[in-house]
Amino acid sequence: MSVSTFGDKGKLVLPPAKQLTIVTCMDARIDPAASLGIPEGDAHIIRNAGGSAKDALRSIVISQRLLGTREVAVFHHTNCGMLTFSTDQLRGIVKDAAPGDAAVAKQVDEIEFLEFSDIHAAVKSDVEFLKASPLVLKETEITGWTYDVETGKIERVV
Amino acid sequence: MSVSTFGDKGKLVLPPAKQLTIVTCMDARIDPAASLGIPEGDAHIIRNAGGSAKDALRSIVISQRLLGTREVAVFHHTNCGMLTFSTDQLRGIVKDAAPGDAAVAKQVDEIEFLEFSDIHAAVKSDVEFLKASPLVLKETEITGWTYDVETGKIERVV
Repeated sequence: MSVSTFGDKGKLVLPPAKQLTIVTCMDARIDPAASLGIPEGDAHIIRNAGGSAKDALRSIVISQRLLGTREVAVFHHTNCGMLTFSTDQLRGIVKDAAPGDAAVAKQVDEIEFLEFSDIHAAVKSDVEFLKASPLVLKETEITGWTYDVETGKIERVV
Repeated sequence: MSVSTFGDKGKLVLPPAKQLTIVTCMDARIDPAASLGIPEGDAHIIRNAGGSAKDALRSIVISQRLLGTREVAVFHHTNCGMLTFSTDQLRGIVKDAAPGDAAVAKQVDEIEFLEFSDIHAAVKSDVEFLKASPLVLKETEITGWTYDVETGKIERVV
């Protein structure tokens, strides 16, 4: 999009119009605007490997306390890369690529990679985490969803 | 988009076609597909409050080691919410909303909110962080950019 055709988009304001925060995966096949039907200006979109709510907590606190969002929707998706490995395996891959490097070993051992083995269970677990977190506002509406990258189908889990 | 019109999108594969990872803000006014010109399937899109590369490290390691990306582009944007507060102020807001709640105080004190006071400096600092990180592959091409939410203009910083 060129600057000259940018038009009214430039007038959108900072706080999300729908007071909504989306948490979803960084996966290249997901476009929240097109896939999830979220127009620009409506929602904060947090994306990370797997769409982890735990990993998103810093951003959610900012979204709620400073920018007024009051709803969180967590989306996980089929064929997710997070279903394919374990934290121990990935730590091994990183260490094997830098044999004897103590800084690499120390830093990678400090990262929990937050993989999961079932997307429905992962959605439920993330919603429970947010509901139990003392840092998430009590009045928040929290929902959990799956997205099928092969068909585009969206399903509510919780 | 309905399931019946989903078409060839369902055939996109898991690894990003352009071996590219984008790191940008959760801001509601940013749509990486439309604003940054990244088609579905081409790149991992990591988004968090501010577009922090530090916060994205877990996801970047997964993106590089398991899904073959070799380029990272960090985007910060004008009128970002991260320019408007400090970690101490936000910790105060959260604690003031739950007076005497020790769990809230403990957990919020553990979070660095990663605010910044200048978007160009923040882009440079994030790129330097990634270049210095022993967990990021040495051969990675790392660039830093700003996005103007009022005009749509994109500028390369580093």
